[in-house]
Amino acid sequence: MTAPKRISGVLAPVVTPFRRDLSPDPGRYVRHCKWLLANGCQGLAVFGTNSEANSLSAEERMLLLEALVQEGVPAERLMPGTGCCALTDSVRLTAHAVALGCAGVLMLPPFYYKGVSDEGLYRNFAEVIERVGDARLRVYLYHIPPVSQVPITLALIERLLKRFPGTVAGVKDSSGDWNNTKAMLDAFAKSGFDVFAGSEVFLLENMRNGGKGCITATGNINPGAINEVFKGWQRANADHMQKDITATRNVVQKYPMMAALKAIIAHFAQEPEWATVRPPLVELTPAQSKALTAELKTRGFDMPGLAEVSATA
Amino acid sequence: MTAPKRISGVLAPVVTPFRRDLSPDPGRYVRHCKWLLANGCQGLAVFGTNSEANSLSAEERMLLLEALVQEGVPAERLMPGTGCCALTDSVRLTAHAVALGCAGVLMLPPFYYKGVSDEGLYRNFAEVIERVGDARLRVYLYHIPPVSQVPITLALIERLLKRFPGTVAGVKDSSGDWNNTKAMLDAFAKSGFDVFAGSEVFLLENMRNGGKGCITATGNINPGAINEVFKGWQRANADHMQKDITATRNVVQKYPMMAALKAIIAHFAQEPEWATVRPPLVELTPAQSKALTAELKTRGFDMPGLAEVSATA
Repeated sequence: MTAPKRISGVLAPVVTPFRRDLSPDPGRYVRHCKWLLANGCQGLAVFGTNSEANSLSAEERMLLLEALVQEGVPAERLMPGTGCCALTDSVRLTAHAVALGCAGVLMLPPFYYKGVSDEGLYRNFAEVIERVGDARLRVYLYHIPPVSQVPITLALIERLLKRFPGTVAGVKDSSGDWNNTKAMLDAFAKSGFDVFAGSEVFLLENMRNGGKGCITATGNINPGAINEVFKGWQRANADHMQKDITATRNVVQKYPMMAALKAIIAHFAQEPEWATVRPPLVELTPAQSKALTAELKTRGFDMPGLAEVSATA
Repeated sequence: MTAPKRISGVLAPVVTPFRRDLSPDPGRYVRHCKWLLANGCQGLAVFGTNSEANSLSAEERMLLLEALVQEGVPAERLMPGTGCCALTDSVRLTAHAVALGCAGVLMLPPFYYKGVSDEGLYRNFAEVIERVGDARLRVYLYHIPPVSQVPITLALIERLLKRFPGTVAGVKDSSGDWNNTKAMLDAFAKSGFDVFAGSEVFLLENMRNGGKGCITATGNINPGAINEVFKGWQRANADHMQKDITATRNVVQKYPMMAALKAIIAHFAQEPEWATVRPPLVELTPAQSKALTAELKTRGFDMPGLAEVSATA
């Protein structure tokens, strides 16, 4: 079997729906994934930070991924997060994703121990790649120091690319620092290393500098408008479109991101259970949810067809 | 069944032995645990930070814990770490430890998401306690902000103690800040909340202020001398003994702690395989190991009987 085609475009780190008892809800999950693919997402970075993936056990992640594929979400559109603190968990989840035919995996560094060396991180990624041992594997490194506190340095990328060309396929840069994204683009983009911005705020700049798209939290709610910037980045009105999607994100960012995304989906899907988050996160208050959705509506924001999808479930 | 007696004294966060292929080695693990209990440790805080516990999968932890109990390590001397990022993992590991009869569990907060609220952390611990639902459960909260980056505040402890008196049994304070340990002692020690210092550097001060001992990395190599301070804290030479164990720790602390502990054990057990760590950690260089053990020996340091235990395995 050959590796799936590389993904480019807008990817959502898909929020994970829980029932009131905090168990994952595969039905709502499949529906949301299909809505995203039908409304602007080229791919789904399931089990990312905004998916509360690290609040799920390895078994819960594998069951949800299997549910997606079984229910007809194309595996070649999936880029599940598989980087865990434990090497053995990372190997298990990565091998599982490859076996299902996923386009790639988005891999956090092991994030419990702080101040670890590039040598230790290199060994972690190398062990995972070698133990999975599958030519179809495509690894996207996940740089998100504000949360993981463990960075993926340029030197580490260079070393991994040299040892595993083709397998090490790209990066999601969630540093929030455009200079860092630019440095990654300048160093590696021409060699076929795919740089995704970690927020749509940097999407236009990323495209203008050889990037491949963005993997962004608000891709969960605003994929259509973000995809217009991706498709139209060379158009005359690109800067205007970029300003608009940035403004929408800024409204959402006034609140804790994951709870806010779920409150928005709960509102537009007319499914209150969507608001549920797992500890240590806390859902928005009713007043916060109301203020957030009201402000979005004044901007003309909508999630077209979402309520209809939910109603027919 | 009733809950095991509360542990006090010196506990080691037992280092986890790996084979060259990075798989855990239950044989060496059992031997080291028995050596620790025979040489000064009152209890074993297996699966702590210095155990590389977060580099182990939940399954690996459960198999190792079962190996200890099956091989005759008394469960009432065990305080396994069971706090994970995923609520479902924490529940699973905690229920498993209680079922095996462990004295208590040492519980990290979920540590991936940063800047979370006390409300979210309260919900996490409350959910674990309620889902495990066993009167024998004794929870020791694990405050280690330099690594977890997620603190256990006094306000959170107060709220948990109020809701789960008896079950919430104590804390390990690895903040490295004596003022914080003192504040925990002043606020909660008299009510039967057991405060363990996270390093033997604070052992004497902790005992003088109503604490119950220490859970310390170097308990893996120097349990006898540390236990002398615990037993003799009211003796005239207590300050002198404290200075000595602090000085030994300071030698070890010149190097990355976990790699250093394993290098020391490898040397004194005459088992080179002990030096193995899992990524993202890196073992000491041969030169570092040699310098470390040489400096310890100039202090008269030894691990009595360790080589004999290994030789008879």
